[in-house]
Amino acid sequence: MLSTMQDVPLTVTRILVHGALVHGKSTVTTWTGDGEPHRQTFRETGVRAVQLAHALGDELGIGRGDRVATLMWNNAEHLEAYLAIPSMGAVLHTLNLRLPADQLTWIVNHAADRVILVNGTLLPLLAPLLPQLGTVEHLVVVGAGDSSVLDAVPTDRRPQVHAYEELIAGRPTTYDWPELDEREAAAMCYTSGTTGDPKGVVYSHRSVYLHSMQVAAAESMGLTSHDTSLPVVPMFHVNAWGIPHAAFMAGINLLMPDRFLQPGPLAEMIESERPTHAAAVPTIWQGLLAELTEKPRDITCLQQVTIGGSACPPSLMKAFDEQLGVRLCHAWGMTETSPLGTIAQPPAGVTPEEEWAYRITQGRFPASVEARLIGPDGSVMPWDGVSAGELEVRGPWIAAAYYGGAGEEPLRPEDKFSPDGWLRTGDVGVISEDGFLTLTDRAKDVIKSGGEWISSVDLEGHLMAHPDVVEAAVVAVPDARWGERPLATVVLREGATTDFAALREFLAGKVAKWQLPERWTLLEEVPKTSVGKFDKKVIRRRHADGELTVTTL
Amino acid sequence: MLSTMQDVPLTVTRILVHGALVHGKSTVTTWTGDGEPHRQTFRETGVRAVQLAHALGDELGIGRGDRVATLMWNNAEHLEAYLAIPSMGAVLHTLNLRLPADQLTWIVNHAADRVILVNGTLLPLLAPLLPQLGTVEHLVVVGAGDSSVLDAVPTDRRPQVHAYEELIAGRPTTYDWPELDEREAAAMCYTSGTTGDPKGVVYSHRSVYLHSMQVAAAESMGLTSHDTSLPVVPMFHVNAWGIPHAAFMAGINLLMPDRFLQPGPLAEMIESERPTHAAAVPTIWQGLLAELTEKPRDITCLQQVTIGGSACPPSLMKAFDEQLGVRLCHAWGMTETSPLGTIAQPPAGVTPEEEWAYRITQGRFPASVEARLIGPDGSVMPWDGVSAGELEVRGPWIAAAYYGGAGEEPLRPEDKFSPDGWLRTGDVGVISEDGFLTLTDRAKDVIKSGGEWISSVDLEGHLMAHPDVVEAAVVAVPDARWGERPLATVVLREGATTDFAALREFLAGKVAKWQLPERWTLLEEVPKTSVGKFDKKVIRRRHADGELTVTTL
Repeated sequence: MLSTMQDVPLTVTRILVHGALVHGKSTVTTWTGDGEPHRQTFRETGVRAVQLAHALGDELGIGRGDRVATLMWNNAEHLEAYLAIPSMGAVLHTLNLRLPADQLTWIVNHAADRVILVNGTLLPLLAPLLPQLGTVEHLVVVGAGDSSVLDAVPTDRRPQVHAYEELIAGRPTTYDWPELDEREAAAMCYTSGTTGDPKGVVYSHRSVYLHSMQVAAAESMGLTSHDTSLPVVPMFHVNAWGIPHAAFMAGINLLMPDRFLQPGPLAEMIESERPTHAAAVPTIWQGLLAELTEKPRDITCLQQVTIGGSACPPSLMKAFDEQLGVRLCHAWGMTETSPLGTIAQPPAGVTPEEEWAYRITQGRFPASVEARLIGPDGSVMPWDGVSAGELEVRGPWIAAAYYGGAGEEPLRPEDKFSPDGWLRTGDVGVISEDGFLTLTDRAKDVIKSGGEWISSVDLEGHLMAHPDVVEAAVVAVPDARWGERPLATVVLREGATTDFAALREFLAGKVAKWQLPERWTLLEEVPKTSVGKFDKKVIRRRHADGELTVTTL
Repeated sequence: MLSTMQDVPLTVTRILVHGALVHGKSTVTTWTGDGEPHRQTFRETGVRAVQLAHALGDELGIGRGDRVATLMWNNAEHLEAYLAIPSMGAVLHTLNLRLPADQLTWIVNHAADRVILVNGTLLPLLAPLLPQLGTVEHLVVVGAGDSSVLDAVPTDRRPQVHAYEELIAGRPTTYDWPELDEREAAAMCYTSGTTGDPKGVVYSHRSVYLHSMQVAAAESMGLTSHDTSLPVVPMFHVNAWGIPHAAFMAGINLLMPDRFLQPGPLAEMIESERPTHAAAVPTIWQGLLAELTEKPRDITCLQQVTIGGSACPPSLMKAFDEQLGVRLCHAWGMTETSPLGTIAQPPAGVTPEEEWAYRITQGRFPASVEARLIGPDGSVMPWDGVSAGELEVRGPWIAAAYYGGAGEEPLRPEDKFSPDGWLRTGDVGVISEDGFLTLTDRAKDVIKSGGEWISSVDLEGHLMAHPDVVEAAVVAVPDARWGERPLATVVLREGATTDFAALREFLAGKVAKWQLPERWTLLEEVPKTSVGKFDKKVIRRRHADGELTVTTL
């Protein structure tokens, strides 16, 4: 039996029109670094978004489904692009300005971007790539910057260059938005793993809309038009965790940091603009803590801070609580999950100690994110806080595939998607009876020993608590009897006399006996990736190549 | 270009599974009147909902699309029905126990309900109707009550009678829920206008899901698992404003009043169970205020109270603020809008006086409710706080039609739905530049004078502020020159010497000159409907029949 309800699509267009009209007085403030932030209302933002849509459509010939890229900081113009491009039926493609040149080039070509909106300050980064960008017809330069870097690009490989303000000036301030299907593409974002080509996730209008509703939900970030949110997390990083779209949906005021992401300017903008909410990865908060320890300022305006991207050290969370009077709230997600997967709002009726235990988990799933743990033998594990498995998720804002390229079928690599369509997150963890997720390892780093899993992260944590251990990285190595066993590689402090037997003994009371490593290696330093994480791939390869001296106990 | 996101339907099934699993510790407490409320967790509620689904499917033969009615108070079993019936693919049909017997009969037959779940305490109301209910095969009696009233029903017209607890006892506690299309019917609710047959609105899984997300949104009721909500508004009245579904979605604890809706028991349950939120029509709060004035109790646990159904007198809102320290928050909606249409959360950055002015409006629209005002000449009116029009709305939880009956086409009466599919609310009002709706009249009561509208409610309000006027009702009467003009009918206090000219003079400074009534009638009493509202239909008819003595000034 069918319902008698209206069949109205969930679209970014609705978010744009609603925000500009009903929340027209809410504001977006962009930090400029010169003491005079740029301010505009949502109404003005809406009008400028309309003008941008006209410029892209009428002037640059952008049509339904065309990709329009942005290489931009968090600022008002980027918000205009966020709203205008999907609303006109085109696809917003946010480019990660931190990627190496070859990956950026590959991504632009794979998405077949026809236009790039680029902050003037980022032209030096983009200009050298232009000769390799075959599909880009137009460059729209936003804000000041040195355009002379473009002179080095051969004229036959140089797209047409436009200045943003000139391009949108004088265009009509109303737009007859197309009727969109909510399953059409609204935005795309590439994720670059450690192996293989980057993978593009294509968000739909529906997924953006539903995700925006959840971001603003009382049980998630809980934001309203009485709040001002500071998304430090870049708008090129999974849509700044959905904050810009949620802001226009619920009238949340925005404070945009532009390129001023260093601890000093961040402290300054928080002190002077008094946001009630902020969102960033742990590194940012670590930097801000150091800055404020050295030069104290009051940031208690921040009623809540969302922290994600990687696990937040409990010490950082404690320091924010105690030193700064600001509550960090853990969230988990990934490009493939839009990203809101979990958020660690502690439940009611718990003691302060219990509350703390909840806060350091990854958090609880909203109704739209269905979760299951797949154990070592492929079966679904119970939610008992003990049984570990790889986290798989399902829901209307979770990816089902990656973009295959123009005219190509979507990609569904089987290590990323289960046969019944769930996303394999590659994260291993446990879920408590009341639905709180704790991640313990990456699936590729977990040690599969005799049908059970050993967490490398867990062993490392215990080892690094030993006073003589500077660094410890545990990897899986092949074992004839158990399939895999842990190899513990450690870096000892200078002059330390501890031996492997003592370290094994040290671990003995802390993990199950069968998890204790037999294989030990002394390293000068643990190899690291470009972002400073342990590069376990390298350790595993060196072991396979016989380059490591292994002591067996 | 299509997105690569998962195509996961938005269903009540997801709400049920999620609430029972992730918010399993949240509770639903049902008032019993004997000092010992009945308490059960969401986990227990989920298990019992599963058992109910098995009972309905396996035992009573209920299948996809079949209608299962409830004639119940707000209690835990009703919540189980709310979750189980749509999840199994059947349609929950909530019956309004306040309707006259003939309407109730008509509605059950029109919906072709196969089962009725009825509270034992309501059997005396249902029993006399049974001989006329041709489609009802099973009666499931919930809780205690005198079943002997069924003896009077002729055996050949008597459905099979089951006791709820016996029916669900021992059934399996897991269910292989069907894959549903989100546009399938989840629930239905009839609205009975003053003329014609009742009209059935059929909610979809999608509309219920999206509406639940909005109810719990920070900018709407802002509820989480730290809250306990007391829905005094009946679950047979537009799904208790969406609170039960939202509760299971976001883990909001529920306090269910069952049949104890009198001011005394309400005060008692608030005092002892300490809910943080409640929702009801103004009459309930008026009664509670009187109760608490006479016998003061502390109800400041209520951080927010949602009030809707009809406009809340500002004096009541003030009294709650000042006497009880509890904030009443105005909301507007109707059966056709699921019902959340607007909610009056004042904007940020306003003075206390401005805040007050915002609080007495109907409130602001969420992103999913698109609104327009259609003026006297059929054109769309601006949002300027002055230009009045009939409110029309569009959105994923707004009705597009009424249920036509089994196998019949949906009904789209043109006075209820515009040619382009928007719902005509029948309410006339203005919208401020920042999106706050103020309703001024019912469309059928507004006076269409020379292409402009005169608000009858506005004139009545001013007239009733005169010390000699006890009641005033203004209706439209035909006028050769202007189309319609207002007829002011007034009831004067005993011994009053005011004449019509003085009353007209009294109005003169308060409304535009062209709105001043020329026609005046003295009444002994304004005729009322069964619920005590002015019955303007009767006045118009008496005028048309020449029964009124009209003085023309």
